[in-house]
Amino acid sequence: MLTRIDHIGIACKDLEATVDFYSRTYGFQVFHTEVNQEQGVREAMLRINGTDDGGASYIQLLEPIREDSAVAKWLAKNGEGVHHIAFGTADVDGDSEAIRDKGVRVLYDEPRHGSMDSRITFLHPKDCHGVLTELVTAAAPSEEAR
Amino acid sequence: MLTRIDHIGIACKDLEATVDFYSRTYGFQVFHTEVNQEQGVREAMLRINGTDDGGASYIQLLEPIREDSAVAKWLAKNGEGVHHIAFGTADVDGDSEAIRDKGVRVLYDEPRHGSMDSRITFLHPKDCHGVLTELVTAAAPSEEAR
Repeated sequence: MLTRIDHIGIACKDLEATVDFYSRTYGFQVFHTEVNQEQGVREAMLRINGTDDGGASYIQLLEPIREDSAVAKWLAKNGEGVHHIAFGTADVDGDSEAIRDKGVRVLYDEPRHGSMDSRITFLHPKDCHGVLTELVTAAAPSEEAR
Repeated sequence: MLTRIDHIGIACKDLEATVDFYSRTYGFQVFHTEVNQEQGVREAMLRINGTDDGGASYIQLLEPIREDSAVAKWLAKNGEGVHHIAFGTADVDGDSEAIRDKGVRVLYDEPRHGSMDSRITFLHPKDCHGVLTELVTAAAPSEEAR
C-alpha cells in the first residue's frame, strides 16, 4: 500500500546552485547526498516534513553525471524541472507486482538501489498519464542507523 | 516557513479517467473536488498522507475547463504530466513577501483562492530552476468544518 508522497525528483544542471536556491529561498536543508552510479546521477535530498506512516517527504535534486544517463537525456529534451514523483510503501516488491498485474509497465524486473539504501522501481510514464512514477521502500531504521 | 509538501499538481485531459487510474492503480481516494473558475480548472484532491505540521499531502488532478486557461495552454505544449508543486505554510502572505524580497518573481500581488478555501500564490518557474512552485495556506480547521 502506498502510504506517503516520499519525494519529488527534480532534474537540474548544477546541483550546488540548485541546492543553494532551495536553501536561500525556502530555508530547506540538505539531509543527505550521494552518487548513484547505476542511475548516472548525483543527488541531494532535502527533508521537508515527516509523514504519518513514520516516514518523511523530501525534495530530491538530481544532476546527471554522464551524458547517456536517463536524467541527462531528459534534461536535454525538457530543461530543468520535475522529473518524477515517488510514493512510499512498506512493500515495493508486492506493490510493484500488483501494479504490473493491472497492466501498468514496471520498468525493472526487480527493485533496485535508491537514495539512502532504499529499494525502488519506476512505472512507465505513458501508462501513468504522463507522470514518471517511482515506488520506494525506505531502508529499515536499524539500517539507517548503521 | 514552508513546513510540508502540500500537493503535487498534475494536469490531465480527462479528470474522471485520471481519477479512475489513481484509484484503480494505487488505491487513492478522492478527498475533495471543485471547480476553480478563476484558474479555469476543475480538480480532484486525493489525500495521500498526513504531515507532522498538522496538515496533509495531496495529489491534485487538474483538467482545464476553458482553452485560454494557463493549464490548457500548458497541456497543449507539454501533454499530461506534473504541472506544479506546492509547499504548505501557515503564512502565505509573509512567506511570499520574503521570497519576493529575495528576487524571485511572485505571480500574484495578493494570494488568491485555492483548493478547499486555501490561499495560494505562485512563483515564476524561470526563477525556480524550471519548477512552477505554489505556496499555500490551508483554511483554518474551523472553516473546513463549516
